[in-house]
Amino acid sequence: MGGDFGPQVTVPASLACLRTNPGLKLIMVGDQAILSSMLSSAMSEFKNRISIQHASQVVEMDEAPQKALKNKKDSSMRVAINLVQEGRADACVSAGNTGALMATARFVLKMIPGIERPAIISTLPSIFGHTHMLDLGANVDSSAEHLYQFAVMGEEVVKAVENIDRPRIGLLNIGEEDMKGNEQVKAAAKLLENSSLNYIGYVEGNSINAGQVKVDLIVTDGFVGNVALKSIEGAAKMIGHKLKHSFSKNLLSKLAGLLAYPVLKLFKDSIDPRLYNGASFIGLRGLVIKSHGGADALAFETAIHLAELEVTQDVIRKIGEKIERALAEQVIA
Amino acid sequence: MGGDFGPQVTVPASLACLRTNPGLKLIMVGDQAILSSMLSSAMSEFKNRISIQHASQVVEMDEAPQKALKNKKDSSMRVAINLVQEGRADACVSAGNTGALMATARFVLKMIPGIERPAIISTLPSIFGHTHMLDLGANVDSSAEHLYQFAVMGEEVVKAVENIDRPRIGLLNIGEEDMKGNEQVKAAAKLLENSSLNYIGYVEGNSINAGQVKVDLIVTDGFVGNVALKSIEGAAKMIGHKLKHSFSKNLLSKLAGLLAYPVLKLFKDSIDPRLYNGASFIGLRGLVIKSHGGADALAFETAIHLAELEVTQDVIRKIGEKIERALAEQVIA
Repeated sequence: MGGDFGPQVTVPASLACLRTNPGLKLIMVGDQAILSSMLSSAMSEFKNRISIQHASQVVEMDEAPQKALKNKKDSSMRVAINLVQEGRADACVSAGNTGALMATARFVLKMIPGIERPAIISTLPSIFGHTHMLDLGANVDSSAEHLYQFAVMGEEVVKAVENIDRPRIGLLNIGEEDMKGNEQVKAAAKLLENSSLNYIGYVEGNSINAGQVKVDLIVTDGFVGNVALKSIEGAAKMIGHKLKHSFSKNLLSKLAGLLAYPVLKLFKDSIDPRLYNGASFIGLRGLVIKSHGGADALAFETAIHLAELEVTQDVIRKIGEKIERALAEQVIA
Repeated sequence: MGGDFGPQVTVPASLACLRTNPGLKLIMVGDQAILSSMLSSAMSEFKNRISIQHASQVVEMDEAPQKALKNKKDSSMRVAINLVQEGRADACVSAGNTGALMATARFVLKMIPGIERPAIISTLPSIFGHTHMLDLGANVDSSAEHLYQFAVMGEEVVKAVENIDRPRIGLLNIGEEDMKGNEQVKAAAKLLENSSLNYIGYVEGNSINAGQVKVDLIVTDGFVGNVALKSIEGAAKMIGHKLKHSFSKNLLSKLAGLLAYPVLKLFKDSIDPRLYNGASFIGLRGLVIKSHGGADALAFETAIHLAELEVTQDVIRKIGEKIERALAEQVIA
């Protein structure tokens, strides 16, 4: 029910995913009347692969997380996360209010023992393919220990999703020299250097999309990560705007745009943010995927695919086991 | 002498500026032998508008600021800043080591009384024209009071450079709602709300280049600001890379690129980062402009123009007077 467009987006996206992924089963959580009218023909097409779970409330996009947690116990968001907690669903995918989704997920699912804070991880395009980054906004003022835990958790996600053994991990900083950065980042660098992770050192903001070397995972505090992510979104939007403007300046440029259309289309597709939609909440005892609130059906499909991939790769269990081993080593040491 | 290319860039840029700005006088600071051989014909062309000030040392791009300060007392950077301190130059423009330049500027010029920390401010393109942002890396862990001082100083720069009365000031945060952000940002918001500044509220990373509303000045901590700036640089680089790649895919796309060349050129010029080169160090009792280390001659020209503009507009004096007034009000209150 969430996001800027609700079922208008989530329903068509869900049906498209059911069509392309024969192994997928979906429980649509929300207003029974609305969903059943939208799903009538799909119910017979997909039979036991789709079902509706009624939820009488909807969390508003600007509702305070603690209010939603207290007053919306039958919201689509809450009921969907309950399904994960009860083991009736393997993952929850939502385009709803990020803060409320995180607060609810944390309250219902609880943290993996040993993890102090959950984090948000997502994928961004880069000239090398793509890069994963966390935290994207679940935490502010992360300590060195938190940043280290983000790296440990993030590594498991990247290993599972990318199918690589030792992801290259960079720590986001404002310079590559040792002396640069704040105290938390410098202390986190020490923890990472002394760990078994494949830590490659400090990376700067430009390394997210276009660094000198490939980085598989970039670790940062949620305030910084969120600003970086949105700054990139803004840059892409401005550049797209200026490109469009250049091609619509006069008759000649419009003609050039027409001739170059197939190439421009290819280019546009290659940086289509909808293909990167979906951020995973990690550190919790259950999988929750957050879609961009403004996602269209194609973007929401990407988020559902991500959920399916992480379920198949058993990411949550792997993070739990990794943390357990890390804690055991600490006890021994 | 500084930057990735030294006098190969700074000399041609200087000569170009002397040609276009008849009121400009330049003192070229660095190795006498190198500079006089490069400037021989220019010395007669511009007569008393150009001179050489010898400096026997050069600060390396990766040299630790404190080391440079201690061991390079006759560096081009140090001598140039000395000229400003002595009143023999109105501004220093350098493409050298940022940390060393800031440390030297702070040591030689001293802070404006009442200002706790200097900041770095620059201009970025936006869909509305452009936006100024500070701090871009002079400070980490800025307190609410520091952020407030950045806003006060930044306002004077924007007023002077853009010739507008009440610049619209936004505070960079990870959401627009009151509850979002870290403690420093929330406390800074209170200070800004209670000030006489034209504070418009929280803005997110996307507002730097492409927000919903025009923002003239974005205030943030130097760690966050630097990451945002470099993230945008990386995004622009990746997008440019992908656009080029799309047009060079095959013969047909190359032909399309040829036909669209004038439009693509126009587009490229419209986002040319060289036109935004130059960051001002503010909060000091003298003007220092930092050029990107990798600047070419055109980019370095932009930095010289910026210095000239800020000198003409008397930005340093205006900041000093503003801070004095602000302090006097505090005493009265």
